[in-house]
Amino acid sequence: MTSALPIPATLDAVPAAVESALAAFFDDAVPAAARIDARVGAAAEVLREFVLQGGKRVRPSFAYAGWLAGSSSADRTVATDDTDAPDAADALRVAASLELVQACALVHDDIIDRSDTRRGRATVHRIFEHRHRDDGWAGDPGHHGTAAAILVGDLALAWADDMVHGHRPGSDSAHTPPPRPLPAPVGGVWASMRTEVLGGQYLDIVNEASGDESIESAYRVMQFKTAAYTVARPLELGATLAGAPAGLVDDLRSVGHDLGIAFQLRDDLLGVFGDPERTGKPSGDDLVAGKRTALVAEGLARAAEHDDASAQRLRESIGRPLSDDELRTAREILTQVGAVGEIEQQISALLDSALTTLRRADLTEPVRDELTAFARRIAHRTT
Amino acid sequence: MTSALPIPATLDAVPAAVESALAAFFDDAVPAAARIDARVGAAAEVLREFVLQGGKRVRPSFAYAGWLAGSSSADRTVATDDTDAPDAADALRVAASLELVQACALVHDDIIDRSDTRRGRATVHRIFEHRHRDDGWAGDPGHHGTAAAILVGDLALAWADDMVHGHRPGSDSAHTPPPRPLPAPVGGVWASMRTEVLGGQYLDIVNEASGDESIESAYRVMQFKTAAYTVARPLELGATLAGAPAGLVDDLRSVGHDLGIAFQLRDDLLGVFGDPERTGKPSGDDLVAGKRTALVAEGLARAAEHDDASAQRLRESIGRPLSDDELRTAREILTQVGAVGEIEQQISALLDSALTTLRRADLTEPVRDELTAFARRIAHRTT
Repeated sequence: MTSALPIPATLDAVPAAVESALAAFFDDAVPAAARIDARVGAAAEVLREFVLQGGKRVRPSFAYAGWLAGSSSADRTVATDDTDAPDAADALRVAASLELVQACALVHDDIIDRSDTRRGRATVHRIFEHRHRDDGWAGDPGHHGTAAAILVGDLALAWADDMVHGHRPGSDSAHTPPPRPLPAPVGGVWASMRTEVLGGQYLDIVNEASGDESIESAYRVMQFKTAAYTVARPLELGATLAGAPAGLVDDLRSVGHDLGIAFQLRDDLLGVFGDPERTGKPSGDDLVAGKRTALVAEGLARAAEHDDASAQRLRESIGRPLSDDELRTAREILTQVGAVGEIEQQISALLDSALTTLRRADLTEPVRDELTAFARRIAHRTT
Repeated sequence: MTSALPIPATLDAVPAAVESALAAFFDDAVPAAARIDARVGAAAEVLREFVLQGGKRVRPSFAYAGWLAGSSSADRTVATDDTDAPDAADALRVAASLELVQACALVHDDIIDRSDTRRGRATVHRIFEHRHRDDGWAGDPGHHGTAAAILVGDLALAWADDMVHGHRPGSDSAHTPPPRPLPAPVGGVWASMRTEVLGGQYLDIVNEASGDESIESAYRVMQFKTAAYTVARPLELGATLAGAPAGLVDDLRSVGHDLGIAFQLRDDLLGVFGDPERTGKPSGDDLVAGKRTALVAEGLARAAEHDDASAQRLRESIGRPLSDDELRTAREILTQVGAVGEIEQQISALLDSALTTLRRADLTEPVRDELTAFARRIAHRTT
């Protein structure tokens, strides 16, 4: 079935192809859920809409980039004429399954952060809360919303595993050819990636609760929750699927680490300075949410050296609703103490490091050009 | 590494062997989590204690029963001299991984049911809530406990998938031999099982919120949340791993369906009439929790036919704390209207049906005897 899907030849084409792959997965999964009960089908439909409503498809793009890189190597460890060798359709499926892991992470994160909206729509727990209220059901609508969203997030995580291994919920094994097993090293990368993102998320809530403002802690969350999970592991996943030689995998891991930190640092800047029209998030969202980002940690540390009044005002701008004036003041402090410049400089240095590694990596020129352009887009993005 | 674990020869030996397999898994997984951060390691340690603190290991026992049944068949679809053929160590690992799925289900269920204790200990979300309070952290301790337990449950679900496929978190792929891929049909059963249990759990909360008292709805929850997930799918998982022929898999699925419903009906009786000393749960727990079990649904339907006053009193005993007198009255009504007798009769009929199927199934005599004795223990259990 996946062979009928469009196979992306360039990284620009990945988001649309991933959406087709996810849509095809849900075309089987939602009816399978509905066969349990129509109400379970309706819950799966909420998940489908959540997954298909958009997003930048960053993780699948990196996974597919890893696949392109690995496939272009002259020293692939798999024989491409072996019928068991993964093909581009497998790569697309593995890449797309990352969006289901991400769906679990976002649905559960929105419960944890008590968020009402995401990408301009009600969050999943609020959707179920509203339905509970609209239907006049018994009990606390808020708690019901949380309960339903916990289970829908779990379903996304279970389906991510099914999809990466090539299983469709409810598919009749007698009529569907069995999926090719994933090469064992791919499973190892998949395993590490999930433990890292969950560990990073946990560390994030512990840092927030314990009021840990250290730059070191902010970087550690970033390393696992973003750099590894969003960039380095997806790249490694795709490259490993292609049977990339160890040297190339090491290079891509290094590129992934650099770009992953750069991606998150850019996110931190957009979270305070971003244009709500472009990011889809309210102005100064990270400050209001009290996120301990590297930008905020850097700002607090520098302001403390600078003058106590600025440090105090910045600290008071974290974790509460802000007026336009208060937000402007916080932005000014972050800029004046040099935190913004420092973060921009780090992004540049990380991008340079990634591009240097790409220049000497064992890649064909078209693939090197593709990855280089993609790295620049990631580091300089405005959305 | 798993080859050093004791391989159970009989079903009695499965719980201890499963605990060894889980302990070995956590011996790798907890340090892997701690390498992310010591605080992540501490969270993984909470999960280890939760998983190793006990439980009846029902699902692994059924999975291993399926393996024994499938392995005893003369018509196995795998050649046992094939080095890729799963062995008993694989069966033990697949069986044990069900306890990690169950850990996710229980940790998340305890959030959903707002339970304070499980098996006489604080539930996972309460453990994190207490730690938050003890450490004097910022924010709402209850919400922090929920957030941490959502992530720990997610970790259990991710680790279940890693374990079933033979991956250990943090294992160095360069030094560990790659796991044998699971036969594709096993992945299909694994996929269906997880969708079914999550669908059943969702249906359960919707039934409770919508006040659905119908016997049909109670049975549907039972079919997916328990019969399939606890008995039928684990049996099928083990049998499929062994390459059991289709006829035997069909027979085991039928046995599983019968025993699964019987298991849940026994649970319903124990949930109202069980001895707290033996079950580890408070007297009349299901009534207090407002669970819409088949026993309660049957009781309400029969009481309504019987006399309105009994029906009214029974309905008022559901979903609130009960005095000893009130509990005694509710039990009397359930007995007098014939609901208890009806449920006992159904258990007997289901056990008979399972034993009849076992008698004609393609099994060796020792395995048939083993499964028969196990079926009787499940239907007549008191804990």
